[in-house]
Amino acid sequence: MAPRRRIGEFELISRYFAPLARTFAGAGGLESDNAYLPADGRHDIAVKTDTIVSGVHFLDGESPERVAAKALRVCLSDLAAGGAVPFVYQLSLALPKEWQERWVASFARGLAADQRRYGIVLCGGDTVVTPGPLTITITAFGQVPRGKGLGRGGARAGDDLWASGTIGDAALGLRAARGALEAIGARDRNFLENRYQLPRPRTSLGNHLIGIARAAADVSDGLLADVGHIAKASQLAVHVERDQVPLSTAARHALAVEPALWADVLGGGDDYELVIAVPPRRAEALREAARQARVKVTRIGRFQDGRGVRLTVGGRATAISRTGYVHF
Amino acid sequence: MAPRRRIGEFELISRYFAPLARTFAGAGGLESDNAYLPADGRHDIAVKTDTIVSGVHFLDGESPERVAAKALRVCLSDLAAGGAVPFVYQLSLALPKEWQERWVASFARGLAADQRRYGIVLCGGDTVVTPGPLTITITAFGQVPRGKGLGRGGARAGDDLWASGTIGDAALGLRAARGALEAIGARDRNFLENRYQLPRPRTSLGNHLIGIARAAADVSDGLLADVGHIAKASQLAVHVERDQVPLSTAARHALAVEPALWADVLGGGDDYELVIAVPPRRAEALREAARQARVKVTRIGRFQDGRGVRLTVGGRATAISRTGYVHF
Repeated sequence: MAPRRRIGEFELISRYFAPLARTFAGAGGLESDNAYLPADGRHDIAVKTDTIVSGVHFLDGESPERVAAKALRVCLSDLAAGGAVPFVYQLSLALPKEWQERWVASFARGLAADQRRYGIVLCGGDTVVTPGPLTITITAFGQVPRGKGLGRGGARAGDDLWASGTIGDAALGLRAARGALEAIGARDRNFLENRYQLPRPRTSLGNHLIGIARAAADVSDGLLADVGHIAKASQLAVHVERDQVPLSTAARHALAVEPALWADVLGGGDDYELVIAVPPRRAEALREAARQARVKVTRIGRFQDGRGVRLTVGGRATAISRTGYVHF
Repeated sequence: MAPRRRIGEFELISRYFAPLARTFAGAGGLESDNAYLPADGRHDIAVKTDTIVSGVHFLDGESPERVAAKALRVCLSDLAAGGAVPFVYQLSLALPKEWQERWVASFARGLAADQRRYGIVLCGGDTVVTPGPLTITITAFGQVPRGKGLGRGGARAGDDLWASGTIGDAALGLRAARGALEAIGARDRNFLENRYQLPRPRTSLGNHLIGIARAAADVSDGLLADVGHIAKASQLAVHVERDQVPLSTAARHALAVEPALWADVLGGGDDYELVIAVPPRRAEALREAARQARVKVTRIGRFQDGRGVRLTVGGRATAISRTGYVHF
């Protein structure tokens, strides 16, 4: 979203904020989804903060329950990528001047529903009034076994790259929400829109990844961007086989009509699936964990020596025209 | 700031958010400054989130270094009230569309200076762009001995009420910044303005309060409001002797010219001093802790059976016209 003359989010963080985090090991150089605070002898506390702004990260007229769910779930997705079990969260709510009590009541009902769904509890926060748009910051906390929290670094050459669920639905859902994808059926469009509007963080899989995965991230910036972040933090290259990328039936229909939508599938964000680096000898353990979590996992590539993201289509190397690296 | 027909912040929290925190003991019913997460066998992690918005909590043209300091210090003040030693923080930065890299560079320098001053380190966060004003949310973390973190509840009848430093400077400083208080000298006005613009959280005193205080809060909403919060959470009344309230020389000068400013001194916020409930037998321990921390402490009242805040002036009970209970 920023004019090109300016630096992007990742450069901003690496240039100005990573130096401020250098002396705290649990910050992981700000390269991973979560920070890890030392807790008791058996656990660390994983911490993740996310901010969503009305008109930027959700539509102005979105239902309060859905806004609550979105605010919480983008954080829970990061905790899942870290292998953490969420337990509490803090909420900062900047309400626009014209806020209505019934909006807050519905928002609180949305939080309550997700507290039951994910086993989490509010533990504090702040409430202010802003002359700007509704702005919500959630800081979510999870437990991980001591020193075992997953980050983006840690993958090794030869590790397989796996993805949970299906990829690209959210990006296609955004198109559907804007009135595109008319060639596919209403049922497909609804499915995709729903995947765009409401993240379903893979918390049930996340806490099974400890001892299986070497690194993980959630797909929030886009598949190629997020696997690229793992590769970069692990000082490796990653090779993605496009034809292995798991697709929903609706996404298959959309791609059959318009193959150019592959750019959206590989480059669009907001899927909130997990991408996971797993040594080949742990493949069966991952499959078993996924069965327990009732989440599909698919091997979509491999980490190798080198740098960057390589995409093959039908066995042939393909230029990456849209990586989604910069998301503001 | 809200129109009167609407409920205030405390009612909003007690009606909609406190029920969401009921099952987590460390949330303290959202009645205290901090949440406490169980950490190792010897410590809890104190957590505090605060949001500040440009044009609401600081002026639009404020220097980035000062904005950074203010954002951090309002949280550190709460941790101090909890008796916690701060160690890391998360930063969520919602930048206005027209953000400039040099602003971020100065802001990061401000954070770095306070990291050195308070012994804290950045451990994560989020960066987004907003169509609204610059909005900063800090979640700060501190360590407290297990189960010993202070809250607003816990005071007992007969406990003395103490205050750190001097009270009312920030409210008078706001007036001075708006061009009032011309009758006092420029030096006094500068002192007061500075107290308004830059909180100096009493972290050095805070971590000595464990084992001495039964409850504490920082003065952010105003002296009478904040001691009222302790009284309410402790199910007690609190009696404040106005003539014992510690004043700076500049505040004395202002009050000599315009005694009506007492309403500001007792009702205005943003002093970021501590108000502390201490059993009389621990008075000497508090004084010794204050000496070590190089912070002045003054006994200004007492907790009693009953409800509410009682103010005496020259030994006579006085009606409280302005309590500052509602701050938005």
